Amino acid sequence: MRTAEEYVESLRKLNLEVYLFGEQVSNPVDHPIIRPSVNSVAMTYRLAQEPEHQELMTTISSLAGKRINRFTSIHQSNTDLVNKVKMQRLMGQRTGSCFQRCVGYDAMNALWSVTYETDEQYGTDYHRRFKEFVRYVQEEDLTVDGAMTDVKGDRGLRPSQQADPDMFLRVVERRDDGIVVNGAKAHQTGMINSHEVVVMPTLSLREEDRDYAVSFAIPTDSKGLFYIYGRQSCDTRKLEGGEIDVGNRNFGGQEVLAVFDHVFVPKERVFLCGEFEFVGRLVERFAAYHRQSYGGCKSGVGDVLIGAAAKAAEHNGVADAAHIRDKLVEMIHLNETLYACGLACSWEGHRTLAGNYEVDMLLANVCKQNVTRFPYEIARLAEDIAGGLMVTLPSERELRHPKVGAFMEKYLKGVAEVPAEHRMRLLRLIENMTLGTGAISYRTESMHGAGSPQAQRIMIARQANLEEKKRLACALVGVPE
Amino acid sequence: MRTAEEYVESLRKLNLEVYLFGEQVSNPVDHPIIRPSVNSVAMTYRLAQEPEHQELMTTISSLAGKRINRFTSIHQSNTDLVNKVKMQRLMGQRTGSCFQRCVGYDAMNALWSVTYETDEQYGTDYHRRFKEFVRYVQEEDLTVDGAMTDVKGDRGLRPSQQADPDMFLRVVERRDDGIVVNGAKAHQTGMINSHEVVVMPTLSLREEDRDYAVSFAIPTDSKGLFYIYGRQSCDTRKLEGGEIDVGNRNFGGQEVLAVFDHVFVPKERVFLCGEFEFVGRLVERFAAYHRQSYGGCKSGVGDVLIGAAAKAAEHNGVADAAHIRDKLVEMIHLNETLYACGLACSWEGHRTLAGNYEVDMLLANVCKQNVTRFPYEIARLAEDIAGGLMVTLPSERELRHPKVGAFMEKYLKGVAEVPAEHRMRLLRLIENMTLGTGAISYRTESMHGAGSPQAQRIMIARQANLEEKKRLACALVGVPE
Amino acid sequence: MRTAEEYVESLRKLNLEVYLFGEQVSNPVDHPIIRPSVNSVAMTYRLAQEPEHQELMTTISSLAGKRINRFTSIHQSNTDLVNKVKMQRLMGQRTGSCFQRCVGYDAMNALWSVTYETDEQYGTDYHRRFKEFVRYVQEEDLTVDGAMTDVKGDRGLRPSQQADPDMFLRVVERRDDGIVVNGAKAHQTGMINSHEVVVMPTLSLREEDRDYAVSFAIPTDSKGLFYIYGRQSCDTRKLEGGEIDVGNRNFGGQEVLAVFDHVFVPKERVFLCGEFEFVGRLVERFAAYHRQSYGGCKSGVGDVLIGAAAKAAEHNGVADAAHIRDKLVEMIHLNETLYACGLACSWEGHRTLAGNYEVDMLLANVCKQNVTRFPYEIARLAEDIAGGLMVTLPSERELRHPKVGAFMEKYLKGVAEVPAEHRMRLLRLIENMTLGTGAISYRTESMHGAGSPQAQRIMIARQANLEEKKRLACALVGVPE
Amino acid sequence: MRTAEEYVESLRKLNLEVYLFGEQVSNPVDHPIIRPSVNSVAMTYRLAQEPEHQELMTTISSLAGKRINRFTSIHQSNTDLVNKVKMQRLMGQRTGSCFQRCVGYDAMNALWSVTYETDEQYGTDYHRRFKEFVRYVQEEDLTVDGAMTDVKGDRGLRPSQQADPDMFLRVVERRDDGIVVNGAKAHQTGMINSHEVVVMPTLSLREEDRDYAVSFAIPTDSKGLFYIYGRQSCDTRKLEGGEIDVGNRNFGGQEVLAVFDHVFVPKERVFLCGEFEFVGRLVERFAAYHRQSYGGCKSGVGDVLIGAAAKAAEHNGVADAAHIRDKLVEMIHLNETLYACGLACSWEGHRTLAGNYEVDMLLANVCKQNVTRFPYEIARLAEDIAGGLMVTLPSERELRHPKVGAFMEKYLKGVAEVPAEHRMRLLRLIENMTLGTGAISYRTESMHGAGSPQAQRIMIARQANLEEKKRLACALVGVPE
Repeated sequence: MRTAEEYVESLRKLNLEVYLFGEQVSNPVDHPIIRPSVNSVAMTYRLAQEPEHQELMTTISSLAGKRINRFTSIHQSNTDLVNKVKMQRLMGQRTGSCFQRCVGYDAMNALWSVTYETDEQYGTDYHRRFKEFVRYVQEEDLTVDGAMTDVKGDRGLRPSQQADPDMFLRVVERRDDGIVVNGAKAHQTGMINSHEVVVMPTLSLREEDRDYAVSFAIPTDSKGLFYIYGRQSCDTRKLEGGEIDVGNRNFGGQEVLAVFDHVFVPKERVFLCGEFEFVGRLVERFAAYHRQSYGGCKSGVGDVLIGAAAKAAEHNGVADAAHIRDKLVEMIHLNETLYACGLACSWEGHRTLAGNYEVDMLLANVCKQNVTRFPYEIARLAEDIAGGLMVTLPSERELRHPKVGAFMEKYLKGVAEVPAEHRMRLLRLIENMTLGTGAISYRTESMHGAGSPQAQRIMIARQANLEEKKRLACALVGVPE
Repeated sequence: MRTAEEYVESLRKLNLEVYLFGEQVSNPVDHPIIRPSVNSVAMTYRLAQEPEHQELMTTISSLAGKRINRFTSIHQSNTDLVNKVKMQRLMGQRTGSCFQRCVGYDAMNALWSVTYETDEQYGTDYHRRFKEFVRYVQEEDLTVDGAMTDVKGDRGLRPSQQADPDMFLRVVERRDDGIVVNGAKAHQTGMINSHEVVVMPTLSLREEDRDYAVSFAIPTDSKGLFYIYGRQSCDTRKLEGGEIDVGNRNFGGQEVLAVFDHVFVPKERVFLCGEFEFVGRLVERFAAYHRQSYGGCKSGVGDVLIGAAAKAAEHNGVADAAHIRDKLVEMIHLNETLYACGLACSWEGHRTLAGNYEVDMLLANVCKQNVTRFPYEIARLAEDIAGGLMVTLPSERELRHPKVGAFMEKYLKGVAEVPAEHRMRLLRLIENMTLGTGAISYRTESMHGAGSPQAQRIMIARQANLEEKKRLACALVGVPE
Repeated sequence: MRTAEEYVESLRKLNLEVYLFGEQVSNPVDHPIIRPSVNSVAMTYRLAQEPEHQELMTTISSLAGKRINRFTSIHQSNTDLVNKVKMQRLMGQRTGSCFQRCVGYDAMNALWSVTYETDEQYGTDYHRRFKEFVRYVQEEDLTVDGAMTDVKGDRGLRPSQQADPDMFLRVVERRDDGIVVNGAKAHQTGMINSHEVVVMPTLSLREEDRDYAVSFAIPTDSKGLFYIYGRQSCDTRKLEGGEIDVGNRNFGGQEVLAVFDHVFVPKERVFLCGEFEFVGRLVERFAAYHRQSYGGCKSGVGDVLIGAAAKAAEHNGVADAAHIRDKLVEMIHLNETLYACGLACSWEGHRTLAGNYEVDMLLANVCKQNVTRFPYEIARLAEDIAGGLMVTLPSERELRHPKVGAFMEKYLKGVAEVPAEHRMRLLRLIENMTLGTGAISYRTESMHGAGSPQAQRIMIARQANLEEKKRLACALVGVPE
Repeated sequence: MRTAEEYVESLRKLNLEVYLFGEQVSNPVDHPIIRPSVNSVAMTYRLAQEPEHQELMTTISSLAGKRINRFTSIHQSNTDLVNKVKMQRLMGQRTGSCFQRCVGYDAMNALWSVTYETDEQYGTDYHRRFKEFVRYVQEEDLTVDGAMTDVKGDRGLRPSQQADPDMFLRVVERRDDGIVVNGAKAHQTGMINSHEVVVMPTLSLREEDRDYAVSFAIPTDSKGLFYIYGRQSCDTRKLEGGEIDVGNRNFGGQEVLAVFDHVFVPKERVFLCGEFEFVGRLVERFAAYHRQSYGGCKSGVGDVLIGAAAKAAEHNGVADAAHIRDKLVEMIHLNETLYACGLACSWEGHRTLAGNYEVDMLLANVCKQNVTRFPYEIARLAEDIAGGLMVTLPSERELRHPKVGAFMEKYLKGVAEVPAEHRMRLLRLIENMTLGTGAISYRTESMHGAGSPQAQRIMIARQANLEEKKRLACALVGVPE
């Protein structure tokens, strides 16, 4: 397995085309806006080297029998599913942010079974190809992005009905040695921190959308693939040179709009091409794995926010007030409910035909549905406890200013024994997680990542076996079905 | 294992002193008010005989190596903890009510480890005595009640501070062959359906409360022990002779106030007597097991309510309305969240020193805290879907009335193909579960059973390791601890 | 104005055909199941006689210039609308239940303007006829029911599409001297406590539903009109003869299914017949007035429940616990929010073309939407504070029992200075309001009375002027409309 | 009355000492970070000139009989209180932000009655002095800040107990011609857009805190008074030169930490000095007026956010999806509930001894308590509807980039007929209001402005007359008080 440093170095060697604030960025990995997100991924490498985290962060490859980073693994048991969630909580606790490497992990596990099932029906060669890809990823300890969300255009229309046929990524040319694709993937989390990207369709397709039924993997610096960097709330604070106002000094997430401008994909890397009936289950399975993920990562990030709020209360001298304690309990309660759902859908998972393990679909969707709600309430309570100073705090430069600095130190103190600067640091962390760059991963990603709330509701309706529930009720009152 | 019929017959042989509506009841098991609660417990015997439920309903005794009813077992693994929850969901689905047999099951598992630990410290003989008791229960396939909640008097005062010293059950005499106790236990669910009762203290005690630190088991028809039957909303509908208005025709719960009027307990059945420092952990462990339980039983009862609401919507002709579908999804979502928490605290349980398995304390309390909320919202949504007719429906007798019956059939129809009577039956079931006898177990018991909401909040605060969360936050922003 | 006693006496003279528990009731007013609902209406007469309540309970008739009971009045100002809400809160406080007389009050104010507008368009004579009716009601100080809700059959079908054409009340014969109607009205609150009933259609109608577009008033003992009494949770406790277990000893609500079996309506009492385009606004206006009402009455009933919970906490010795105080604050906060909405839609009302005052439509619907939620949460918190004893309390007869009574007094005490009986009385009141007969008006009626939640949402969408809001947003960001 | 331009010009003449990002700002009013907040205040002058808004924006002075800006007025009636709320909603709709001028308006109305009552008791001269001040403010059409919130230090300690005595602003010298004060006021909204500041204590005081019992008014550019500008989420986007990424191009709020470094206050401008018993009511009254305010301004800002979300849904092609429509209804419902509470506490206000009008204390606190919750839920729903693009959108510069711009236009389109730029503008507005500078006023200010949630709960408990509610409950069940 690579060290964190080797990972960062390997990124420097990629030849990525990235646009940010109107300019092409020459060395993305070292750009101050981008670097914190690199650090978050690097932490997945760092912790994997630490003996005390070996059980969670690594596992033995089912392909090569060697120890690998868990993020590159194919789940071999329910315990693997559970350890995934526990690893994610640990990572959330250590970065206070999105650490991005789950997307590819989830994509690989979804494709593992879907390529197998497609081959079963059509005699295609996808599963072998895909297995080779996974072997390569494990061998090289690569970070892999999973790209699903198309830009979608008019959401009332299907892919083939759009005014512009590229609103969903599609095959525009079929060649002997591979295919050429065109389109764009939105909201790509951690894509330019990745070595490879696994591309998947975004929704169930019909016969007429056959060209959109395509899945493949390519290096992130493939020809024709370029990136437009998404801006985040407070992103430019990272350009200011200080370390307080950014809140979370070292870690963060990243999203890009990835444009595939007539990109060639070699045949060996194509994992689905035209078999539209299998798209629905690919989407569902990826979504389910990724909805499970949120029960882990967001509860880990929640731990940080709860801790920050508790610390802010201490700084204010109100840690023992009954209403403060009660709000902290509520935050913990909600946070642990998310974790419980993440664990439950993992423990209740099952083996697929292809041999890997899949989460319980219903509970994974229930997990994510709670994630679309509770972090918002946890954040609201954190803001309540933090107090108004969180958003009226002057900048770090004022603290260093010859005249004003002394007044900042005097008047921004809470309890006498804690320096104003410590208080500022904690408040800026809460600001980061509720309003700033961290809020993108803690709030908006909780809402829309792995599918917006309504997507889970549709799955919950589908998975819940309402007919059986009606039968139970009728049986009790003697009404025939 | 006994059959359901044998269980009922064995109850008839008990010589119980029960008061109900101002009179002593001669044959409680056949009293129409009481019988549904007997039927619910009987279902725990019936399903244990059915091969398809053997895995959930039974297990192999760790003492005798024979197959026993799971309700009499000591947990030997996390799978046992999980199967408990799944069994409870099944039981909830089949009875639509509280089935009462969990209390003793949870009490026995808590006492198993606490008697062991007490013996370790004091060289007492409690664990052996208790093991004998469990062996007897398993051998005879008995139903055991767990009696914890004292009547408590002034809740601002400790037991020894009360104006009346009997407000908490206590030892009033110590004899060579045993002890004599006095006091009363409130809210006893399923006690007069049980063969034996395990008595425990209700809260952590101090030195001065030593006489209150007592735990033991005795037959429910012991001398000096009598019962005052609690009334439930709509209880007397069971005396009316019909089968529609009761809602749930066959099943229900039961609570009594159990008065211990100078009751003698033989030495061999005393499991704790004076060791006040062990009371706290006994209470906590029993509570934790019982808080886990609610993730199973209430989600099972919830299934029935969701099914009834879905059926009522069909009868109204609005099953496809978007807002109805969305409310059903919400009910399912909340219900599955309860189940997920029940499962998670079970899977994450651990082995005790005494060898049995205990749930994860934090997650079990989180589970129950959700149970104090979500059934209320599920019930509210069921009432929304059911419509006002649920509470304005005339009685069953009107349906049978020579003149009025025809108008009932004509005007209480929803969709043309469903007879009014079917609609009535389902609506009465929803009424039962939201307002009637069933609401006691679905709502109030969800609130207060296994401890009121505030009790869980105290435990959540204690278990959450807030210090560690503060450290995580401080580490991210470079503030020393 | 009549005294309460005269009102009750006048009811005795009505020749009503009422069926209850399978029998025709000879003297409904004195039937123990029915009497509490008579008492609630009687309170509207009683308080009107008390000088300190004159301002709220009475007003000067706009027709006759004499002082009349406000429940018979036509609103002449915003202050009248506001005083209506304040009167309703007072009535809720004094009865702890639904007092039933608002329905006709609201129906009369809606018909006042709709008959006027129908006449304006069609040159009909409805408004004069209706004015005569109002004059008669005021003169005689009558209680009037408003009957809107049809039984509806299959809710997916319009009136004229139903398998049975009577699922909505309709004109089946047009004669020179009047009309004959057939159908049934469900959930009729307080109808058999009323002297007259004003009948209205239940939903907007189209041309083909013309026969269903009918409104009129008739005496409640008209020929062909009979009543099937709806049962309520715990209704038969009123037959037991005690006064504790009923919870609310004296007051309650009442609902019937009213069957109109070929009932003749004299021409002079017909207020709409065939003018289907005016039905929508009649329904909307009645609903709006009635949705306003709930901001008053339910906050009054809420006051009682909050007070009962506070008292129960005192009895338990926990009145000063921080979490108890906080729950009471939450209950008060929610309750006052309901009241605030009731007041706001009244103060913001406006004059109609016919000269009476109408509430603000949007805010009245917002008011009722909150009523479909907050009483449920207030009730949940009351159950939390009350504790489990509320549903496990033995019956009143046990308290009087020679042996058991003493134990009841001993063990059901909370703080030493309050007798067990007082505690029982308060707990039974909370039970009444959350599970028993009182829960019908506090919970289910809050949900469905004046229209189910979805009905308000449709009105909110319609009234909110979303287009203007879009314009505001676009203007700020420079996007053309 | 001044024009908006005159107002801005007058600000330029102030000699303010302001620090921002480590430097003293020479001309604050034209600083791009600060200017939007000036524009918001300027709108209070602009709309006052527009005939169609004259009724809401202006009134006749009770002192001089001339037409004045309502923000400088003393309430003469309930209608004035109501028109205040309606004016605030209008202002919120037109600026989509905090417009800052309410603080002084509320401070003046609170001091009006408190100075009167202090004089009544002590024969002091405060009310006359204060009246002169108000006359001057009205005459010159000044913007006045109200400064209450001290920095507070350790919140567990009273002012005189703090390690540093300046943690609450206090009198450090009493001279014949006036007083000298020292301290700092935090979270000062709109202070450097104001001509004058009215200073008040922050909490009830005791005898020993007498030096802290001080209220006065001074010009904002008084000697010794300087400002440290608070930073807001995304503040520096205003320095980037574009107009899309800022979201709300023209309007915003502002907060400063105001340091009073031995500032002299002339006697004529001192309105309270040492009369500690009157501080509690000053704080309560100011808070009540200001809690009322939020029912107006935040519902106005909410209109903008609802409109933006509705527009975003249109752009996505999902405006007709049932779940989208339902979320918009929910947002409207919550928003109107806030407004209803603001109106209700105004209509129910009463005349003070000093002749001006005061809001209903209980309902004003209920209003604000809802404001601490509903905007958060409205924001969450807006983020749900907006979709993930809101936080992954590349910058405005990418849209103008020679290569990348075309891809932005192609791929960031929703429905075909709306250009990507329009979509971006609306999404950036939603981002502004939920995460960016606008979120400070819409979220955090809703939480903490006019007092944090717990402050309202204390007032609700105090105002609710719980004893009366207990009496109502006891009366119904025959329990003596």
